[in-house]
Amino acid sequence: MPKVLLKEQKGDAPADAPFVMPAAPVALKIGYIGGGSRGWAHGLMKDLALCPWFTGEVRLYDIDYEAARLNERIGARIQSLPGTQSRWRYRAVRTLKEALAGADFVFLSIQPGPIEFMKHDLELPMKYGVYQPVGDTTGPGGLVRGLRSARIYKGFAEAVATHCPRAWVINFTNPMAICTRTLHEVFPAIKAFGCCHEVFGTQHMLGRLYAGEHGVPRPPRTDITVNVLGVNHFTWIDRAHYKGEDLLALVRTRLARPGALRFYTKAGLLKESSSVFHSMGRVTNELFHRFGILAAAGDRHLAEFVPWFLTSRTSCYRWGFRLTPYSYRIGRWRSAPRLFRRQLAGAEPIVLQRSDEEYMNQMAALAGLCTLRTNVNLPNRGQMGGIPLGPVVETNAVFSRDTVEPVVSGSLPEAVNALVHPHTVNQTLIVQGALEGDKDKAFAAFVIDPLNHRLPVDGAWKLFNEMLRATRFSFD
Amino acid sequence: MPKVLLKEQKGDAPADAPFVMPAAPVALKIGYIGGGSRGWAHGLMKDLALCPWFTGEVRLYDIDYEAARLNERIGARIQSLPGTQSRWRYRAVRTLKEALAGADFVFLSIQPGPIEFMKHDLELPMKYGVYQPVGDTTGPGGLVRGLRSARIYKGFAEAVATHCPRAWVINFTNPMAICTRTLHEVFPAIKAFGCCHEVFGTQHMLGRLYAGEHGVPRPPRTDITVNVLGVNHFTWIDRAHYKGEDLLALVRTRLARPGALRFYTKAGLLKESSSVFHSMGRVTNELFHRFGILAAAGDRHLAEFVPWFLTSRTSCYRWGFRLTPYSYRIGRWRSAPRLFRRQLAGAEPIVLQRSDEEYMNQMAALAGLCTLRTNVNLPNRGQMGGIPLGPVVETNAVFSRDTVEPVVSGSLPEAVNALVHPHTVNQTLIVQGALEGDKDKAFAAFVIDPLNHRLPVDGAWKLFNEMLRATRFSFD
Amino acid sequence: MPKVLLKEQKGDAPADAPFVMPAAPVALKIGYIGGGSRGWAHGLMKDLALCPWFTGEVRLYDIDYEAARLNERIGARIQSLPGTQSRWRYRAVRTLKEALAGADFVFLSIQPGPIEFMKHDLELPMKYGVYQPVGDTTGPGGLVRGLRSARIYKGFAEAVATHCPRAWVINFTNPMAICTRTLHEVFPAIKAFGCCHEVFGTQHMLGRLYAGEHGVPRPPRTDITVNVLGVNHFTWIDRAHYKGEDLLALVRTRLARPGALRFYTKAGLLKESSSVFHSMGRVTNELFHRFGILAAAGDRHLAEFVPWFLTSRTSCYRWGFRLTPYSYRIGRWRSAPRLFRRQLAGAEPIVLQRSDEEYMNQMAALAGLCTLRTNVNLPNRGQMGGIPLGPVVETNAVFSRDTVEPVVSGSLPEAVNALVHPHTVNQTLIVQGALEGDKDKAFAAFVIDPLNHRLPVDGAWKLFNEMLRATRFSFD
Amino acid sequence: MPKVLLKEQKGDAPADAPFVMPAAPVALKIGYIGGGSRGWAHGLMKDLALCPWFTGEVRLYDIDYEAARLNERIGARIQSLPGTQSRWRYRAVRTLKEALAGADFVFLSIQPGPIEFMKHDLELPMKYGVYQPVGDTTGPGGLVRGLRSARIYKGFAEAVATHCPRAWVINFTNPMAICTRTLHEVFPAIKAFGCCHEVFGTQHMLGRLYAGEHGVPRPPRTDITVNVLGVNHFTWIDRAHYKGEDLLALVRTRLARPGALRFYTKAGLLKESSSVFHSMGRVTNELFHRFGILAAAGDRHLAEFVPWFLTSRTSCYRWGFRLTPYSYRIGRWRSAPRLFRRQLAGAEPIVLQRSDEEYMNQMAALAGLCTLRTNVNLPNRGQMGGIPLGPVVETNAVFSRDTVEPVVSGSLPEAVNALVHPHTVNQTLIVQGALEGDKDKAFAAFVIDPLNHRLPVDGAWKLFNEMLRATRFSFD
Repeated sequence: MPKVLLKEQKGDAPADAPFVMPAAPVALKIGYIGGGSRGWAHGLMKDLALCPWFTGEVRLYDIDYEAARLNERIGARIQSLPGTQSRWRYRAVRTLKEALAGADFVFLSIQPGPIEFMKHDLELPMKYGVYQPVGDTTGPGGLVRGLRSARIYKGFAEAVATHCPRAWVINFTNPMAICTRTLHEVFPAIKAFGCCHEVFGTQHMLGRLYAGEHGVPRPPRTDITVNVLGVNHFTWIDRAHYKGEDLLALVRTRLARPGALRFYTKAGLLKESSSVFHSMGRVTNELFHRFGILAAAGDRHLAEFVPWFLTSRTSCYRWGFRLTPYSYRIGRWRSAPRLFRRQLAGAEPIVLQRSDEEYMNQMAALAGLCTLRTNVNLPNRGQMGGIPLGPVVETNAVFSRDTVEPVVSGSLPEAVNALVHPHTVNQTLIVQGALEGDKDKAFAAFVIDPLNHRLPVDGAWKLFNEMLRATRFSFD
Repeated sequence: MPKVLLKEQKGDAPADAPFVMPAAPVALKIGYIGGGSRGWAHGLMKDLALCPWFTGEVRLYDIDYEAARLNERIGARIQSLPGTQSRWRYRAVRTLKEALAGADFVFLSIQPGPIEFMKHDLELPMKYGVYQPVGDTTGPGGLVRGLRSARIYKGFAEAVATHCPRAWVINFTNPMAICTRTLHEVFPAIKAFGCCHEVFGTQHMLGRLYAGEHGVPRPPRTDITVNVLGVNHFTWIDRAHYKGEDLLALVRTRLARPGALRFYTKAGLLKESSSVFHSMGRVTNELFHRFGILAAAGDRHLAEFVPWFLTSRTSCYRWGFRLTPYSYRIGRWRSAPRLFRRQLAGAEPIVLQRSDEEYMNQMAALAGLCTLRTNVNLPNRGQMGGIPLGPVVETNAVFSRDTVEPVVSGSLPEAVNALVHPHTVNQTLIVQGALEGDKDKAFAAFVIDPLNHRLPVDGAWKLFNEMLRATRFSFD
Repeated sequence: MPKVLLKEQKGDAPADAPFVMPAAPVALKIGYIGGGSRGWAHGLMKDLALCPWFTGEVRLYDIDYEAARLNERIGARIQSLPGTQSRWRYRAVRTLKEALAGADFVFLSIQPGPIEFMKHDLELPMKYGVYQPVGDTTGPGGLVRGLRSARIYKGFAEAVATHCPRAWVINFTNPMAICTRTLHEVFPAIKAFGCCHEVFGTQHMLGRLYAGEHGVPRPPRTDITVNVLGVNHFTWIDRAHYKGEDLLALVRTRLARPGALRFYTKAGLLKESSSVFHSMGRVTNELFHRFGILAAAGDRHLAEFVPWFLTSRTSCYRWGFRLTPYSYRIGRWRSAPRLFRRQLAGAEPIVLQRSDEEYMNQMAALAGLCTLRTNVNLPNRGQMGGIPLGPVVETNAVFSRDTVEPVVSGSLPEAVNALVHPHTVNQTLIVQGALEGDKDKAFAAFVIDPLNHRLPVDGAWKLFNEMLRATRFSFD
Repeated sequence: MPKVLLKEQKGDAPADAPFVMPAAPVALKIGYIGGGSRGWAHGLMKDLALCPWFTGEVRLYDIDYEAARLNERIGARIQSLPGTQSRWRYRAVRTLKEALAGADFVFLSIQPGPIEFMKHDLELPMKYGVYQPVGDTTGPGGLVRGLRSARIYKGFAEAVATHCPRAWVINFTNPMAICTRTLHEVFPAIKAFGCCHEVFGTQHMLGRLYAGEHGVPRPPRTDITVNVLGVNHFTWIDRAHYKGEDLLALVRTRLARPGALRFYTKAGLLKESSSVFHSMGRVTNELFHRFGILAAAGDRHLAEFVPWFLTSRTSCYRWGFRLTPYSYRIGRWRSAPRLFRRQLAGAEPIVLQRSDEEYMNQMAALAGLCTLRTNVNLPNRGQMGGIPLGPVVETNAVFSRDTVEPVVSGSLPEAVNALVHPHTVNQTLIVQGALEGDKDKAFAAFVIDPLNHRLPVDGAWKLFNEMLRATRFSFD
């Protein structure tokens, strides 16, 4: 029985206290690596400000010290807002060591290499007829970005081993699986996991489906019980329930309705939304239609893991999504600091509200305040069948005091597993290729990737080398 | 953030509600099978009476209808006590079907066969020089009891499949692993697990150790985080922490103190305690000393799984425990109903207090009220390495709404796994032997069992047949 | 020591008799299924005629009885030739049962469906931009042919179970893996394996390489020791030796020479050879160059298992091979019987010589005359790592009296395994799709296949249905 | 077709040459380690002398140089006998390096430590009530001998790695599994296997059974096809055929006859035979009776792996075998050199005849002269299910030119596997215990061993230490 509920209880707590509100806020030291140049850090700052059971210090480290300084000032500003429920100190530091020493938690959220490299990740493949809506996870862009990231993450893993071996390390950088895998490969005792919100979007969708079906308000996503398995951004849900009702049956019903599998035109799609992130769920529907299981990530991500949706420059429109262009990325990148400065100057408001991210709950659980079942990215130690041990997979796990344990999540249907399996191999090949300086392994991943299946192997080799040169990656 | 804490919150609940106090108590139907003749059922009745978030009906079924009737009256009496926090109706029924139809939960807590069979389970092996302190889990007594249980549990599994296939079935009967395995073998879609409190005793011990070391009150057992793996009553803990402190290091320190590994005499032991259940932790200490890992069950249970402690009728005294005699069992069995009648007549008080059992928390989690990490008995689906898939093992699991998922618990050290492994094989052989009517398989388990290693194989065959005859078990 | 060598030896034979020449030829009954319409059967007839240690009867069954009759007459003619070393009787039969009853060996060598279906297997995909040089193993043609074959082989497996359950069944039909798998799925106790000569071609190539390097005559292929693993037509050799010399090192040296990785033009290729089966080894070289391991099948086969060589109608020329057109297939099909009749009429000679096939050696070993290590197709029982148990794989095995046992062959390099793995899944999906009437499973295989990665999933669906209609395959 | 048979054949050899008699004898260098003090080496010398296809040099190394010298002289004498078919030179050397440098084959056949240590291996356990008929494989004697052996074999493995890394190493020393495992642990690239004749005895027995049943002469053992699996001296046969007849069915029939399961008295047994090695097959019969599968080693060995036959000093008589006493061992040890000297002096004849050992066939196969299927001891790479990868198991393997490959042999029945499994764990614990200097691991093996199950754990500890002291083994 929750301690906080029954104030009168005495003596030994009953066995069932799922959330212990601490007598005083728990003091934490957080090392925040990266995040200097975009707004993601500010979401964390607001979540911290609104959380009554934690307090402490965040040390901000970025290779661009001025960006860290800017965040320091924004953090202080957020703490000064009315409505904050906790006290946090933000401090920009000049070395990784200062950020990590003594940390309880380490947040990793970086841009691997200059933002301009994303231009090459996206546009060089286009020259060869390979189109990527996102390009940060898989496909030629994701894999070459993965090589860069693995190199950088090797350094992070070594620094954690040296400065804060018992800290919990939460990765937010893409490619999620490659980054998280590198941490575990380089420092096997690391307490690291990867955290991504894509599955939550699917839970929200399932909630809306339920709400629509029953004419009730949408249930909160955390009440939508799902079994998750796959790799990050190519995750799947094979069981979903809300109050005992089978939500996949609702998906099946929806799919049977007219239009669920219709095709879009460019004009029609743009009329639906002008956002470069928008999608119609058409890819998810097609995958469910063909394989009988629910893919749990955005269509733009899903489409990159299989060869069937990105068969031409314009095929994305038919399937109801767009390629997010580099021009958008660089525009947002450049405008972000301007926005932050305006916010600091009071020219733009800072809205204090919680995000839908899971890290605050994960931290509460790791601090011993509750027990949490949620999906994370962890090396496969048996939680997912059909995939060898070692590669980072995404399944549910249970978080409790200083402990994260993957739950046994079963196996994907054999056909779907055949789609996921090569990506786990590529994860291994990219990490080993980067760490061992083995170009053949990295190129093997490149040609195994389904998006590159459009290319003859010599064309793939040319593209691979062009991308390496443009992003200044060398295997020597 | 717990919903109940922050009344002012609006709109979508935050993602982190670990315990949702329901607006009104959740109504449940419970089918209670067995428990007619001893006090275990009364503990459940009190736990139900003291739990504000449940209400409903318990249907009591026992092959001895009068015993169920007696429990019905005791249940009603408990509900009439001051201090109850919930409303429950108790109803004795005459058929298994009545108990199960529409049930949300089924409790299985039976005596497999007449209590008098325990005499044969314990005393026939003694004639052959095989001594068992408990005799209900493993060893000749446990295995023959397992044959009886598997036969009976086959009927339960079939009845659940027919009358309440979606109910959660919680087994409390020993041999725990064999009973739970039979349920899953016979009705593979069953939602059944086995529930045992032995590990809690080890958590309490670790808490006391911490308290003694630091001069603080004993922490509650649920704050002692442990990783559990093994088979029921031969479970092991390879990681134990409280507030970040490694408790196994404390065990190591304690072991190094003089006397930790001393031997006892019969007189010395009886001076320590007159209880037939008492033990000095000497077996646990020896196992830790030899294998560097903490066995997490009572010494009387542990000693039955290995051949080294029960080498003569009196060897138990040296190791600080006693053989619980049949005379004690039958005495308690006979006196229990007399006590209950006195309680009903008001000649003896009924003390309303909670037990330390886990089922109330498990039920709360399964009802969606919280998330719970605890140890249970479930078929191995990958949660435990070193053991084939299939046998029921005991590891941690996470309970959430209508879901129980084992967590990946790793593997035992190779030497300890060599001790556990044959018992998982015996589980299979006994269940298959009973269900397939295969006496050879059952006898193979008999001679694989380490306690029977004292016997030549022809002697084991004689004993086996004597026990079968005495307990009227036939493979035809 | 070979018994036959040392006539003087007495008493118990020494332990090392590797080949026992039987006192009298061993009498065999062979059921030959199919083979009615092309010359493959005649190779067997000649091999039998030239083998002094066997004699017996071959029953010829074909759904075209006249074709079987024609073979009967050719068999008799072959037996009448000078130089035959054994006596064989050929008999066309009208039912499968007559062919199988009492058989010691069953040969399966059929055309699955009318030859005209091959037109659809090859040419419908072309309409969609999917090009197949062979089209009988994998790719859209191979998979749809696989559906037909699985249906037919189900009948064979049932007939063997009924009429000759202890016979050895040797499959020669493509798709080899799907046909052999079906036999084992439908009648698990079947003694069946699949037999293919593609690896021998690689052994010959290695022999030539050695001969060229050392200026000696080419060693016989059976002296080229290789470790084989993969699936049929996508098999790999990771160790190859001749007299202790590492032959893969020679391949590496050859690859380093100028021109080894050059590209071809159509004109240049046709100048090399006018054969529609010709290839330059360029695909094999590329695969070795990229993955460091030797692919052991013809380039035309290999190119079908990966997406990189068949990226346009003409890309095959660059890679030094041609697409064998349907016109060639049907031409050869139609001319074959005319040739046979001319041979019977004496207008065309019959040349009595041995083939390079392995079946005679396999039969000798199964008859107990020798021990043979060779590559075959068998369900994976552990011989190949990295692939689940069940799918038919091609590795070495050891043949001895009435026994075929796969040898432990290890695992492919992870990258190569990622290429092979989906084809083992497709094998399962096609066999289950055909046997269970599950169109979704079959279509999953279709879109998993790398050659179909050029198609959007709706285009693949259209092609799939067109092919099914054209080849009159229904899942009902 | 065997080349040697058909002299007239021309051109490329056909694909089926199972035995190629070399044009000239193949020249070999053999390093023979140990064997200085007993007759086993002389059997090899005779086998070499009678083998026409090998010639060469044997370098004899023993820690007792004089013993090696004596063997050198005996080898020369054997070569001088009429009837030899080959030329061999024997040379005693003073260092391990001289014996190994340039060797094609290395024979390991040593006494691990002074022969007097066997007294302690056998007699100290007896003081504690633990009786061993052999004491060189398992049980307290076998395990402590294993510790000594692992230390010595570490040196052999390192020497092979240095002086002849490509040589084939054949181990004959017991404990076979521990010695062979150590070689592979210390030098993973070693080409080593273990060779034992126990299974041959079972093949002979099966041959006699067939002969008796059919009134024909006993077939040679190599024609008795068996599937072998288990660990050395605790190997099992689950399939046995001769000319298609199921020989295990004959065993079953024999068991059903009166007397097959009768018990013996000491007097009755001694009347059967005075040999200390004699046994009645009673243990084998009992195991078959209980588990339905044929144990394939002598009863004296088998009885040591399970706890049921050696329950008292005299229980062996009931089961029809004797404990071979140390007095016999030391007697034979002392008399052997005297015999050899008498043979050299011509006072005692040397009989030139072949042994029934398999090494000559294995060497012929490894030299490329034939293909051989036989049982050997190799690390489990997947050939045996139910046992982890790594431990040395005994299964069939196929020998061919410079290649030994285990064949996939399946799994033991679950109950029998439960008996074998702990011995594979003990193998690991003893090897690691010796190599890592970890006494706890070694003692874990000691108490896991079924023969020691008679002892309380503190008694086992005392015995263990007494044995270590007596055999001067230290973990420091």
